[in-house]
Amino acid sequence: MKKKHILFFLLILISSQIQASTDDIQMPPNDNTPVNVDATLFINRIFNINTVDESYQIDGYLLFEWHDERLKCFHKNNSTEPLIFENHRAEKLINEEIWFPTFEIINIQGTQQTHNIRLAIWPDGKVVYDERFFGSFSSNMDYHKFPFDSQSFNILIETYSYDNTYLKFNNLKLLPEQKKSDHLLDKWSIKNMNTRVDDITYDHFAANGHESPTYSRAVFELKAKRLSGYFIWQVLFPLLIIIMASFMIFWIEDFSTQIGIGFTLMLTVVAFNFYSASILPKLPYNTFIETVIIIGYVFIFLGIVSVIINNLIKIKRQKEIHFLKWLRAVFPISLMISLALLYYEFYR
Amino acid sequence: MKKKHILFFLLILISSQIQASTDDIQMPPNDNTPVNVDATLFINRIFNINTVDESYQIDGYLLFEWHDERLKCFHKNNSTEPLIFENHRAEKLINEEIWFPTFEIINIQGTQQTHNIRLAIWPDGKVVYDERFFGSFSSNMDYHKFPFDSQSFNILIETYSYDNTYLKFNNLKLLPEQKKSDHLLDKWSIKNMNTRVDDITYDHFAANGHESPTYSRAVFELKAKRLSGYFIWQVLFPLLIIIMASFMIFWIEDFSTQIGIGFTLMLTVVAFNFYSASILPKLPYNTFIETVIIIGYVFIFLGIVSVIINNLIKIKRQKEIHFLKWLRAVFPISLMISLALLYYEFYR
Amino acid sequence: MKKKHILFFLLILISSQIQASTDDIQMPPNDNTPVNVDATLFINRIFNINTVDESYQIDGYLLFEWHDERLKCFHKNNSTEPLIFENHRAEKLINEEIWFPTFEIINIQGTQQTHNIRLAIWPDGKVVYDERFFGSFSSNMDYHKFPFDSQSFNILIETYSYDNTYLKFNNLKLLPEQKKSDHLLDKWSIKNMNTRVDDITYDHFAANGHESPTYSRAVFELKAKRLSGYFIWQVLFPLLIIIMASFMIFWIEDFSTQIGIGFTLMLTVVAFNFYSASILPKLPYNTFIETVIIIGYVFIFLGIVSVIINNLIKIKRQKEIHFLKWLRAVFPISLMISLALLYYEFYR
Amino acid sequence: MKKKHILFFLLILISSQIQASTDDIQMPPNDNTPVNVDATLFINRIFNINTVDESYQIDGYLLFEWHDERLKCFHKNNSTEPLIFENHRAEKLINEEIWFPTFEIINIQGTQQTHNIRLAIWPDGKVVYDERFFGSFSSNMDYHKFPFDSQSFNILIETYSYDNTYLKFNNLKLLPEQKKSDHLLDKWSIKNMNTRVDDITYDHFAANGHESPTYSRAVFELKAKRLSGYFIWQVLFPLLIIIMASFMIFWIEDFSTQIGIGFTLMLTVVAFNFYSASILPKLPYNTFIETVIIIGYVFIFLGIVSVIINNLIKIKRQKEIHFLKWLRAVFPISLMISLALLYYEFYR
Amino acid sequence: MKKKHILFFLLILISSQIQASTDDIQMPPNDNTPVNVDATLFINRIFNINTVDESYQIDGYLLFEWHDERLKCFHKNNSTEPLIFENHRAEKLINEEIWFPTFEIINIQGTQQTHNIRLAIWPDGKVVYDERFFGSFSSNMDYHKFPFDSQSFNILIETYSYDNTYLKFNNLKLLPEQKKSDHLLDKWSIKNMNTRVDDITYDHFAANGHESPTYSRAVFELKAKRLSGYFIWQVLFPLLIIIMASFMIFWIEDFSTQIGIGFTLMLTVVAFNFYSASILPKLPYNTFIETVIIIGYVFIFLGIVSVIINNLIKIKRQKEIHFLKWLRAVFPISLMISLALLYYEFYR
Repeated sequence: MKKKHILFFLLILISSQIQASTDDIQMPPNDNTPVNVDATLFINRIFNINTVDESYQIDGYLLFEWHDERLKCFHKNNSTEPLIFENHRAEKLINEEIWFPTFEIINIQGTQQTHNIRLAIWPDGKVVYDERFFGSFSSNMDYHKFPFDSQSFNILIETYSYDNTYLKFNNLKLLPEQKKSDHLLDKWSIKNMNTRVDDITYDHFAANGHESPTYSRAVFELKAKRLSGYFIWQVLFPLLIIIMASFMIFWIEDFSTQIGIGFTLMLTVVAFNFYSASILPKLPYNTFIETVIIIGYVFIFLGIVSVIINNLIKIKRQKEIHFLKWLRAVFPISLMISLALLYYEFYR
Repeated sequence: MKKKHILFFLLILISSQIQASTDDIQMPPNDNTPVNVDATLFINRIFNINTVDESYQIDGYLLFEWHDERLKCFHKNNSTEPLIFENHRAEKLINEEIWFPTFEIINIQGTQQTHNIRLAIWPDGKVVYDERFFGSFSSNMDYHKFPFDSQSFNILIETYSYDNTYLKFNNLKLLPEQKKSDHLLDKWSIKNMNTRVDDITYDHFAANGHESPTYSRAVFELKAKRLSGYFIWQVLFPLLIIIMASFMIFWIEDFSTQIGIGFTLMLTVVAFNFYSASILPKLPYNTFIETVIIIGYVFIFLGIVSVIINNLIKIKRQKEIHFLKWLRAVFPISLMISLALLYYEFYR
Repeated sequence: MKKKHILFFLLILISSQIQASTDDIQMPPNDNTPVNVDATLFINRIFNINTVDESYQIDGYLLFEWHDERLKCFHKNNSTEPLIFENHRAEKLINEEIWFPTFEIINIQGTQQTHNIRLAIWPDGKVVYDERFFGSFSSNMDYHKFPFDSQSFNILIETYSYDNTYLKFNNLKLLPEQKKSDHLLDKWSIKNMNTRVDDITYDHFAANGHESPTYSRAVFELKAKRLSGYFIWQVLFPLLIIIMASFMIFWIEDFSTQIGIGFTLMLTVVAFNFYSASILPKLPYNTFIETVIIIGYVFIFLGIVSVIINNLIKIKRQKEIHFLKWLRAVFPISLMISLALLYYEFYR
Repeated sequence: MKKKHILFFLLILISSQIQASTDDIQMPPNDNTPVNVDATLFINRIFNINTVDESYQIDGYLLFEWHDERLKCFHKNNSTEPLIFENHRAEKLINEEIWFPTFEIINIQGTQQTHNIRLAIWPDGKVVYDERFFGSFSSNMDYHKFPFDSQSFNILIETYSYDNTYLKFNNLKLLPEQKKSDHLLDKWSIKNMNTRVDDITYDHFAANGHESPTYSRAVFELKAKRLSGYFIWQVLFPLLIIIMASFMIFWIEDFSTQIGIGFTLMLTVVAFNFYSASILPKLPYNTFIETVIIIGYVFIFLGIVSVIINNLIKIKRQKEIHFLKWLRAVFPISLMISLALLYYEFYR
Repeated sequence: MKKKHILFFLLILISSQIQASTDDIQMPPNDNTPVNVDATLFINRIFNINTVDESYQIDGYLLFEWHDERLKCFHKNNSTEPLIFENHRAEKLINEEIWFPTFEIINIQGTQQTHNIRLAIWPDGKVVYDERFFGSFSSNMDYHKFPFDSQSFNILIETYSYDNTYLKFNNLKLLPEQKKSDHLLDKWSIKNMNTRVDDITYDHFAANGHESPTYSRAVFELKAKRLSGYFIWQVLFPLLIIIMASFMIFWIEDFSTQIGIGFTLMLTVVAFNFYSASILPKLPYNTFIETVIIIGYVFIFLGIVSVIINNLIKIKRQKEIHFLKWLRAVFPISLMISLALLYYEFYR
């Protein structure tokens, strides 16, 4: 009788090997209150900020922390230290032994690379999951004020399967704090960092006879201002020099020289035009910098037209006129007013 | 006797471990009606729309839903909640335990990246498979009307192995609905979204003595119009300014200046030509924008020829002629007629 | 005794688990005739045809079909339907249970991506292996006639380990047939498609006392002609306009204007030169298009030289000469003859 | 009784298979002193140093060495040779059998590729872990002195989970030594190489009732100076030639020629401007080379202005003036002073 | 008793499953002579030879062959054919069952892609390991003579863990032989191919009380000469035409035209300069082609200076001088001498 019993026990044990023994702790905790998850995002660095593709890459650490009373069983003796499981061992626990909600970065582009993962189980049932990740993100950036624009770098996290009847985000932390984050963003200056928990309802995933599920979303936001030194010195400065140089045609007497300068400078603005095409995506609207280029086109074009009209009049009337001398003042003043209006329009 | 029996049982059990016990539910359901599969495509974002490579990337969720009565056995007690299996656990079910038809995205380029998968088994045997995917797509785009063109962004799905005697697509949903899809497509405006189920017959896969198999294909279609602001302001506007500037040679008296302007502007149109080469693939036909550039070449070339002919006549006849004055009107009018005809030809 | 026997049986069974039971059917079929393999290549699309890298990507399906009598044992009852194994289940069979020759795409670049695989075992022992693959290919293209060239897109397949004493390719099919292949190749027109089986002997792999092994190679060939509309309209047309424009210097009297035009146009041909560098690899020979550019250089250079010589003579002799007037006819005729000869040379 | 006992033993053994037998040696060594780890970084090559992305790639070997007395048990007989475990076998040991702290490269970008790994266990319990790795790194480079700048190529390593109560880095070696490192860095000359151990405290990871953890960090530093031959000969040399050529306008009498040269050269500096944009990231500050380009703009612009003023005066006063002759000396001297000041500013 | 015995046997067998039975043949062969390994590298193709990144990709087969008497046990009956293990089955043998030294390609960049692997075990204990690999390589190329340079394409192989007391390379073969290698390298012509075995001593890996280990290194070398047709016809030819065209300024009388040509051509050489920047890395030294460009700068600059000096003298002396006529001969001769010297300097 006993032998049979034992064999039967053996039978069950083998057949169920790992699965059965932990079956109960693989289900979500079955009390009626949702699990409270604390999340911490530690950003190592934001880099490859690509203005053309509207994408950037984040290298950081994600920490999730919750309590699962059932996991106390992992601690046989009265230890105060957590049990640490790294990489392969943590994966085994997550895949086969304990309840582990999959967290999903909503706005990531492609799959995140995960260097290392760690699962720490504390004697009181606290679970701390930690991963170093490396992901590409893509967002619709607003370039109207480019190159004097600010952009948001966000990370949005939800669980993949458990709505807020099962799981809620609680305390969020975005690190390092602003005062220590010097190396975080290159060529941008951080304006503010904050976090919040949103509730997102997915109407179309409502199952028959069930309410629309609402998911708890962890939002980590970092807002930064572009350091625009490059664009000031390498684009706007030469562009203004060229527009100003085009005003010299009003100080020159020889018609042929006037025309030659006009067209050479128009060609140069075409070059700026093509260059600006390589630093920005093909936007349906004009940015600040492109509007300045269009102003350049218009002023140079009007300059050439003025010079030709002046010449035609001079030939007809056969005497010197003061039309161009008057334009010596009109053009620079118009330019200044245009730029002032432009600046007001974009940055009021 | 009993012991032997038990041992034999043990033997069978170990040898077959997981496999045998579920063998029956790994086969397609064997009643004669095909399985009805509902499919939902939720598009998170379409991005990296590359006009040169004629490719784009889609980040979304794919949901497939069907009934498999046999899976009721997974629910031991009278639960109303589904059993949820994420990632590794879902894979194990799919690979080793239940019948799962492989769905294939027909028009994907390379392998799709799958972030997370989920399998939910409901008490009534409903199976809901959900995956977040990220894929690159490639299609032959029609650029005749570029930059005022519309393009289709399609996703076509079939099962890999089961023709419509086994499986049929039934209800398809493409989400989010148009009114909520603001962030779905950047720099394009959505015209319409629809879905349909096609039947595709593969003649060449007909086995001997079997009919040509017909597969059920789920088609998700999204049609969008390019927001062409960039091309209007950064390409067409400067191009028209340059063509118009070339008409100034008829208002200038000096032959040498005329010729200088003519050739400088031709060189500028060459620059536009090369630039347009970098924003479009090397198409066997001319797009709207390239036809405008060719018109530019022709008008500037004819302008130069006119000026030279005028000069030759002037030298020969030794008196002023009114040939060029006449062209002052002819060229702009011809240009306007050309552009109007072009527009009519492309967009009637 | 019986118990011991059973336990021993159990022991063998566990230790050998999957392996032993199928050991015999993992070896190549041991009768003396080679296995006949039918192969079908279904091309979905050829794309990213990169003229500079001489590479292209193929998305398609590969089907291999042969008979292995031993696999009849998989069918226990009198079914007429095949057993279908997808992905993970097919891999398990291939890796651990049945004889499966590895097929290798000889001319692939890097590893092929495999979306889905399927293994169908028919009641009569027919094995059908099917995979959707996605691979990059690289070949030495012949660009002498560029942009009016034709190229071959080939796929060569051999088994990795089994020479033709074991395995021979038999029937090959390349699909879809030409009449249905509209979407197969973009910007190319298909000239012909064919297949053949080659025998390749590898001398250097001959083992001591063994003959040089000969492998059966399946060759799938697709020949296509480039649709050269882009190159005609965006490169050759403006280039000819520029060369023709350079002949205008013979119709102009003013030496300084003549020289100015000559050098401006030479600079433009330099631009074409650099542009053609970006559409072709750095070939050791001149293509048709590059030869036209060199002709452009030569004609413009000779034009400038003629104009300078004409000027020197005019100054010396202090009278008008008719040298340039004569060249008005000589240059265009020479150009036409050059292009005709060039065309004859490249396309006879 | 015995049978039962054996069966029970069998039961335990099977259920625990690999795990149990090595459970004890999977925990960190439990004496109170931290484990001392020696680390050696052998750099094969640093390459793809990308000035625009501020990234580089390192191909090298990482060696970690420590003592774990418990591993003596692996040596059954009195061997003096280590037991060597490569790749799969080493992974199995690391994942399932022994205590192995995960080492993390802090400043790596994405996941490192690992070619081969090796674990050697010596009879005295010494563990030597060796991996060939290949990683991309990214750092904020300081380009103020570009192209005469020096940069640091660092590798920072910490353990992922064990603070310095568990583990401390001890002896670090960076190889090959400087005298043998000829092929290590291409286009850079190594200035110095050194290593140090830092203690990094993470305040925000402090658990309740625990002190802020301090991690031992291994720092490998290599400092190198850019070999700037390319930038001297291909950028600065032609730029200076062009600025010098612009001074020729003071030696020319004809106003129209003066103006023509001035604007042609300004256009050339615009070309240099765009070119410099392609060799550097879009920095918020001006580098040495960009400052030289700005000086170029300013000098050419002032030259044009001088020439126009001179012309206006000449026309008004109707007589030759010596203004330009004076500038023949002023401009070159000012340029030399500007460059000297610039050099002093950047490299004092 | 017997039952107990059997159960115990069962116990051992299960616990050790695969491992124990082959434990002995997993160690290196323990006789005192090193294992002799023959290596064959069969190169399919070298491609993507990237002059800017100094990298190339190799697609080939690597064969390693040695004797391991212990593996005779795999052949139960008197077969003369080898046992063939492909891919998954070969990996299982390598990872878990037999002694297999890891071979490492020393100079590879990143991890090699392995398509297929095969392990053949012959009845006499001969082991033949074969893999199709695909790898990227990077080397410091010497471009001094560019575009008339030759480069080495090497593959260096060592074992990862076994120094030459364990393992020595013996016979090396590099295939295909030169006479059959037509398709191996595109745009390069092979000069010679050879192989050799080097002994590399690693001082810094010396363990305490052990000698510095010496590793046997297999070196496969292929030397090839660039086919420089492209650079001759698309770079040097137009460059020489432009330099020659610049000599025309000595045949022209009009100062303004002279100056115009001079500066237009200088701008064209700037274009060549930037173009050459895109075909070569940013080298600290000047290549042949860049030196020719610098010569171009210098000659055109000197030409402009000469013309200005000539003009100044002409104005001062108020009479025609023969300075420029003299330069008509001096400049071309100086250019020829410069190029001859350059050629001698680079290619003596």
